[in-house]
Amino acid sequence: MARDDRAPAGAYDPATYRLLTFHDRVPHFRDGSDTPRAYLERCLERIEALEPAVRAWAFLNIDRARQAADEAGARYRAGAPLSPVDGMPIGIKDLIETCDMPTEYGAELFRGNRPIRDAAVVYFLRKGGAVLVGKTVTVAFGGGDPAVTRNPFDTRRTPGGSSSGSAAAVGSKMIPLALGTHARGSTIRPASFCGAFALKPTFGGINRQGAFSAAQSLDHLGVLGGSLADVWTTARYAAKHAGGDPGSPGLYGALEPPEARKPQRLVRLDMAGWAVAEEAAKRAFEAKLRELETAGVRIYSRRDDPLIEDYEQQLARMPGLWQALYRFEMRWPLFPYRDHDSAKLPPRLLKGLAEGDLTSQDSYRAALITREHVRAIHEEIARRCDGMVTLSSPGPGPIGMDQGSAIFNEASSVIGAPAINLPILSAEGVPLGMQLLGPWHGDERLIAVGRWIAETRRA
Amino acid sequence: MARDDRAPAGAYDPATYRLLTFHDRVPHFRDGSDTPRAYLERCLERIEALEPAVRAWAFLNIDRARQAADEAGARYRAGAPLSPVDGMPIGIKDLIETCDMPTEYGAELFRGNRPIRDAAVVYFLRKGGAVLVGKTVTVAFGGGDPAVTRNPFDTRRTPGGSSSGSAAAVGSKMIPLALGTHARGSTIRPASFCGAFALKPTFGGINRQGAFSAAQSLDHLGVLGGSLADVWTTARYAAKHAGGDPGSPGLYGALEPPEARKPQRLVRLDMAGWAVAEEAAKRAFEAKLRELETAGVRIYSRRDDPLIEDYEQQLARMPGLWQALYRFEMRWPLFPYRDHDSAKLPPRLLKGLAEGDLTSQDSYRAALITREHVRAIHEEIARRCDGMVTLSSPGPGPIGMDQGSAIFNEASSVIGAPAINLPILSAEGVPLGMQLLGPWHGDERLIAVGRWIAETRRA
Repeated sequence: MARDDRAPAGAYDPATYRLLTFHDRVPHFRDGSDTPRAYLERCLERIEALEPAVRAWAFLNIDRARQAADEAGARYRAGAPLSPVDGMPIGIKDLIETCDMPTEYGAELFRGNRPIRDAAVVYFLRKGGAVLVGKTVTVAFGGGDPAVTRNPFDTRRTPGGSSSGSAAAVGSKMIPLALGTHARGSTIRPASFCGAFALKPTFGGINRQGAFSAAQSLDHLGVLGGSLADVWTTARYAAKHAGGDPGSPGLYGALEPPEARKPQRLVRLDMAGWAVAEEAAKRAFEAKLRELETAGVRIYSRRDDPLIEDYEQQLARMPGLWQALYRFEMRWPLFPYRDHDSAKLPPRLLKGLAEGDLTSQDSYRAALITREHVRAIHEEIARRCDGMVTLSSPGPGPIGMDQGSAIFNEASSVIGAPAINLPILSAEGVPLGMQLLGPWHGDERLIAVGRWIAETRRA
Repeated sequence: MARDDRAPAGAYDPATYRLLTFHDRVPHFRDGSDTPRAYLERCLERIEALEPAVRAWAFLNIDRARQAADEAGARYRAGAPLSPVDGMPIGIKDLIETCDMPTEYGAELFRGNRPIRDAAVVYFLRKGGAVLVGKTVTVAFGGGDPAVTRNPFDTRRTPGGSSSGSAAAVGSKMIPLALGTHARGSTIRPASFCGAFALKPTFGGINRQGAFSAAQSLDHLGVLGGSLADVWTTARYAAKHAGGDPGSPGLYGALEPPEARKPQRLVRLDMAGWAVAEEAAKRAFEAKLRELETAGVRIYSRRDDPLIEDYEQQLARMPGLWQALYRFEMRWPLFPYRDHDSAKLPPRLLKGLAEGDLTSQDSYRAALITREHVRAIHEEIARRCDGMVTLSSPGPGPIGMDQGSAIFNEASSVIGAPAINLPILSAEGVPLGMQLLGPWHGDERLIAVGRWIAETRRA
């Protein structure tokens, strides 16, 4: 094999690297020139070739996936696919319960755990004919020490976390789509490092029941994919059938992905991250903004509007606000797990839990009030533009197995606003994402804007 | 034994029947004239005597409870109890996870299930020294066919559900306090039938994580007890340490129960239930209102205020609104359980699930909008008075093992407003509750008003 074990997925150039897509194969499934089984086999070949170096999978359910793909193929042949995800190979982050595969939460404590149910989103995707290829590697409980997965473009680098395996599998073209979760940066960050598209929807947008969550008011079910079309359709289909989180209306919009839509005005945010971002990352981001301006998009910043400046000052304190919320919420379920067998909890998690011992309901309430304030500012600014843009991470996945920084991701986790990763930048020869943020329930329009930006990159 | 097996807890007269209380024993634990172990032994004697007829318990953890009571006793002797619940014998509804007792959700499908963690509220009550006596019987998944528990005042009658065992155990003075859950009427209804005080707090008031829920936007962690003092202190203590549901501020107020507070104005609501309530129940309720008026409380109704009339018209449609919300939310987790082994699901649950097959995200969203509208009316009326009163149920627990009607309970489940059961009425010689409702986060003041009403009953 000629493959470079240092870069199993090959060299990365955002202008030429083509991710795996599914929606564009559906016409071929319908006319018989391709089949879901053949599509799956191509995925499995890629997995076989790259997995030893990437280690994206906690479990592969190949026999069952082949069976599901064959069943989907029969439906296409009969002209009666079940849904837009019928036959789509999907990876499931191992924080998310599955009834036919182990669900270990990346944690020693749950080695061999076999739930009898699928998580809500898995249940309804499976009903729609999705082909569940396997469970993707996660950082333990979403917040422990880095997982075994490596960045497919440079195995010395982290793929990010905690949806490490989902991002690496999509970024390396093993599969067209994977599910993640996101309570801090766990969907957008690894997507940035691994070159995948991703949607962290509006809070409550996709039912997350059956996924482990250490901090439910920060947590989201996220979708990573090779195209915004697949990401959108899968997310919207899941929400339509599984609902959003209970009490939420869930994702709004059509099942079909929205047409690309040129933004008139974008707001560029520094957040807490710009001050610590790497020079190469800043240059890549600034160059992209110049490109957008050249294409006629107006870019506004803190220098243009006192409200944006006010927002930036709030965003600079976002890491502390995220911590204040997380520290109180994670006390349960993590305290009981610590009591049960602390030796089986990862060291990083134990360190965080010690901070949970020191917090209180009163400081949590204070953080909730601040959250409402920042959310109101975010919504007001969102009304004035077609999206807000930042880096998705302060640089590409760092060398070493740390998960990398979530400093650009905490804001949307706290506020609950939708966020999209666009894999359209690079630095040091590996992927780097641009993040696009919008107002609550503006997911569909944000996807439209994201499509335009992503498609313009080659213009 | 002279005990009447038809009425194991004896005759019921709300004016003379004294429930078991805990808070008033604490001074005796402190001065050594009583001990938590002796208190527990009195509970266990009562359990031993009544349990064969009442069947309130799914599991009893007697050895461990004795050990916990002894440890609490040592702390009182040392002058250092851990909390206001230190040494308090508590029953845990079997929808709520416990790390040292089976958690079967009343369901065949979970026979022998042993979680490794305590639910959030159990975890922190245990840390505070509470003595967890055992698991109380629940209707399967909170919504299946009636459980085996019988009404302690007339074993031909239902104790109500789904917190059947918790209500029967408190009402029959086996224990001073028990935890319940409430997504429709599951705390207030059985408390009404069994003569227990109960608080279903403001939505999100007490962290319900680790309790089974088929409909999370309707579900609440509830507390049943022999006095509003114990109910309040336990609820508030639990919320202080476990928090409310993630993202909620949780119950507000002091740990100490508020002083009784005479209401100036109460609003009497018919809801959907008055039209179908039993004559004896109506008479008991009307007589209590006259008593309150005699004591100087002004009672308002739909005849006095067009907004109340408007609210009543909304409340008349509450059963349909509750259904619309429940039907969509319960699809997960109950659909996966049906797929796993439908023979192990109770027939009533299966019937409900068939309705879930017919609903949609769009009709769910319509119901969410109606909910917001009704909630706004409720809050506006709550501002104009010191509480709203209704029957807690259209009559006492009916003969036969049906759970009885929740028609007076659906409103606060949908709206999320706090509700209290006051065991101050009776009909046909068995208990019947008066329900007191208030504004979001008005729990503490509602307890104060409830105490006044309950104490006035003997005036």
